[in-house]
Amino acid sequence: MTQPQMRERTWVQDVKPKVGERVRLKGWVHTVRELGKLVFVLLRDRTGTVQCKIKGQKEIAKQLEEEAAVELVGTVVEDPRAPDGVEVDVEEIRILAKPVEPPPIQINRPLDVIGMRLETILNHRALSLRHPEIGSALKVRSEFIWAFREYLRSQGFLEVQTPKIVAAGTEGGTALFAVQYFERTAYLAQSPQFYKQMLVGAGYERVFEVGPVYRAEEHNTTRHLNEYISLDYEMGFIDDFREITRVETELLRFMFEHVERTCPRELEIYKAELPKVPKEIPHVRLDEAISVLREKYHKHCEGDLDPEGEKLLCEYAKERWGTEFVFVTHYPREHRPMYAMPNEEDPSLTNSFDLLYKGLEITTGGQRIHDYHMLVESIRSRGLDPQDFEFYLEIFKYGMPPHGGLAIGAERLTAQLLNLPNVRQASFFPRDRTRLVP
Amino acid sequence: MTQPQMRERTWVQDVKPKVGERVRLKGWVHTVRELGKLVFVLLRDRTGTVQCKIKGQKEIAKQLEEEAAVELVGTVVEDPRAPDGVEVDVEEIRILAKPVEPPPIQINRPLDVIGMRLETILNHRALSLRHPEIGSALKVRSEFIWAFREYLRSQGFLEVQTPKIVAAGTEGGTALFAVQYFERTAYLAQSPQFYKQMLVGAGYERVFEVGPVYRAEEHNTTRHLNEYISLDYEMGFIDDFREITRVETELLRFMFEHVERTCPRELEIYKAELPKVPKEIPHVRLDEAISVLREKYHKHCEGDLDPEGEKLLCEYAKERWGTEFVFVTHYPREHRPMYAMPNEEDPSLTNSFDLLYKGLEITTGGQRIHDYHMLVESIRSRGLDPQDFEFYLEIFKYGMPPHGGLAIGAERLTAQLLNLPNVRQASFFPRDRTRLVP
Repeated sequence: MTQPQMRERTWVQDVKPKVGERVRLKGWVHTVRELGKLVFVLLRDRTGTVQCKIKGQKEIAKQLEEEAAVELVGTVVEDPRAPDGVEVDVEEIRILAKPVEPPPIQINRPLDVIGMRLETILNHRALSLRHPEIGSALKVRSEFIWAFREYLRSQGFLEVQTPKIVAAGTEGGTALFAVQYFERTAYLAQSPQFYKQMLVGAGYERVFEVGPVYRAEEHNTTRHLNEYISLDYEMGFIDDFREITRVETELLRFMFEHVERTCPRELEIYKAELPKVPKEIPHVRLDEAISVLREKYHKHCEGDLDPEGEKLLCEYAKERWGTEFVFVTHYPREHRPMYAMPNEEDPSLTNSFDLLYKGLEITTGGQRIHDYHMLVESIRSRGLDPQDFEFYLEIFKYGMPPHGGLAIGAERLTAQLLNLPNVRQASFFPRDRTRLVP
Repeated sequence: MTQPQMRERTWVQDVKPKVGERVRLKGWVHTVRELGKLVFVLLRDRTGTVQCKIKGQKEIAKQLEEEAAVELVGTVVEDPRAPDGVEVDVEEIRILAKPVEPPPIQINRPLDVIGMRLETILNHRALSLRHPEIGSALKVRSEFIWAFREYLRSQGFLEVQTPKIVAAGTEGGTALFAVQYFERTAYLAQSPQFYKQMLVGAGYERVFEVGPVYRAEEHNTTRHLNEYISLDYEMGFIDDFREITRVETELLRFMFEHVERTCPRELEIYKAELPKVPKEIPHVRLDEAISVLREKYHKHCEGDLDPEGEKLLCEYAKERWGTEFVFVTHYPREHRPMYAMPNEEDPSLTNSFDLLYKGLEITTGGQRIHDYHMLVESIRSRGLDPQDFEFYLEIFKYGMPPHGGLAIGAERLTAQLLNLPNVRQASFFPRDRTRLVP
């Protein structure tokens, strides 16, 4: 007989305060061990694990293999020997799904003990995500993304979704994946850059997007994915590019505080401590950064910072300002896309920036050109044809306000903050030079 | 001189209570008219419009063309003749961007007056979205999506992002867009179906996704897009498929109440009244629905409901249960995908459902097969090769719990609820059989 009050499922995390109550648990068999007449099952659901004690019921208890999906009904009792001070005295067992063969990855042993190659982990991605040391990274990523949205919403930004099938690339042709779109060739969007600018001009003024972007880059590194989630925002009617970095500073503080609050267990797994975002993140002009590196570290960078230069600059920032965040600003025009806004005082430079943290670039952004004629000129100066960009240029004819924005790679940010050696570990199902499955 | 307290921008919606204060407004010139020595500008920003009065400053006032982006500084004064009872006495004018030519769409006149074809509206999409009767639909869509996420988060669902470049299609090959993925051919995902199921099995148990999906369908109708935003959820450890419809019922109620609260202005523009979601939405088996249609309306449907049948059934639901929502359940296996769970009592049927509202299908969902062997068998029965689905099948070997879920098309839902005749009106930049730009 179904007892209606018993249909309610209890999450593992809510078991502890229910001493004396009957609970209905569902989840996977994390570990199972026999101790004389008793069988102890550590049951795992999405909220944690709890010890369950089975007396008798030999026939069905024998089927409780590791990773079986089960339903257990029992009474919560105090037991100081149990991992959490309580355990569940099991009265009913239902096997929902038995493994048809032993899993190729052991979910219940520490990763450094089972010593698994990343390749194997990714080949068995759905299964490997069950491992708390593997799957927790994606929970953290999810909370970062939630906080990204929530902060921007609170500042009047509208969430948008822009097309990923486009007629032309943002930068004019390289590293694009071609799509057969009926009788035409189209491309996968490398970024929502054009569209987010157009939506600022469409009257929404402040927009953000969380969506996939595509880079057909040949290299296979620990820092690159061919499909990743880009966190983009763009804001209109700015006074100067510092408004963009100011919003980012507040945004990052909000994101980190949110993840600290919601993911303490996950951060502990990765021994990750999220950085304190200072009230103001230091801004250093690229040419000044290059001078500092030369004078202080005898490090020579030409025109841009290389990875070692980025590391040293973050060390410098830590020493000088007590933070490992630093905005590097005023990149030369030739290193920035055609839409980057030239600097008023030195038009060979742009009102653009990268945000570095602990030696890694986590954001690229800047002010964009909003004047129609200047933009057409800039497109021409790159050897591109303004006609190819007409769909983008049109709104610039009708009162495009000063604006700018930035993009953050969700996987890269997550990997960096959780100390994951490979950005693939922060993707549910990564796509790289050779990987299309699972 | 910059006065720091004057750098703060005031949103138009916040002007009214600031009588006597100086404000700094930014936005677009919605209308402009001269009245003797005075110039009246209706300034529009993302929050609304406000009347601004300019005395003198002839030279610069002449440049205030419609759709120019401007900054106005002035004092808020009461004036019963102004549209909102207040206006701004302008002291400073800054032109941020002048139109280089008159816009091809008049933003400040009612749509039924300017009589614009949808084709024209879509050709000038960024500009046309400035029109309140056009751009407001996308704000409503954004709030629907926010509420979708927020409700599911509150129920323990994890937000996920799954790959849109896939090695094989969900249904085995039709209506797929091909992507050149380096030396291989890949496809754009038709749905996150396989991946959301795999992530239930990956231990997250409850997942949702808001992301693009792709259908290479040849037809060009008012109800189809080739790229659209799918709102998906999937939940594990369900007792039966009614758990999925129960979550959807609460979800829709939350979504509609949220949009009513946050978008009163937008709903008024479309004269849209959001439906009350009943405590329980009626469930009707497909075979019963077909009988009702035959007996009550002399309408003959074979095997499935056609659009007229769907309309009549919703009328019936309204008459009988006082709601235009109805779940149609128990579709035959041959009309459902290979992963649909057969019904326990009649295995020629499935534990699946469509949700109809006012004659239109807004959701398709159901319970899925979780038993590995049954799923392999089902794949074979469709003439498909289980080896092609190995990346999907693997997790079913290792304790896949009973599960199910559904998908809602964001554009279709928005269009339906706002009474928009064409689903393209609910997409920022629609992609259809012939449209790839803007």
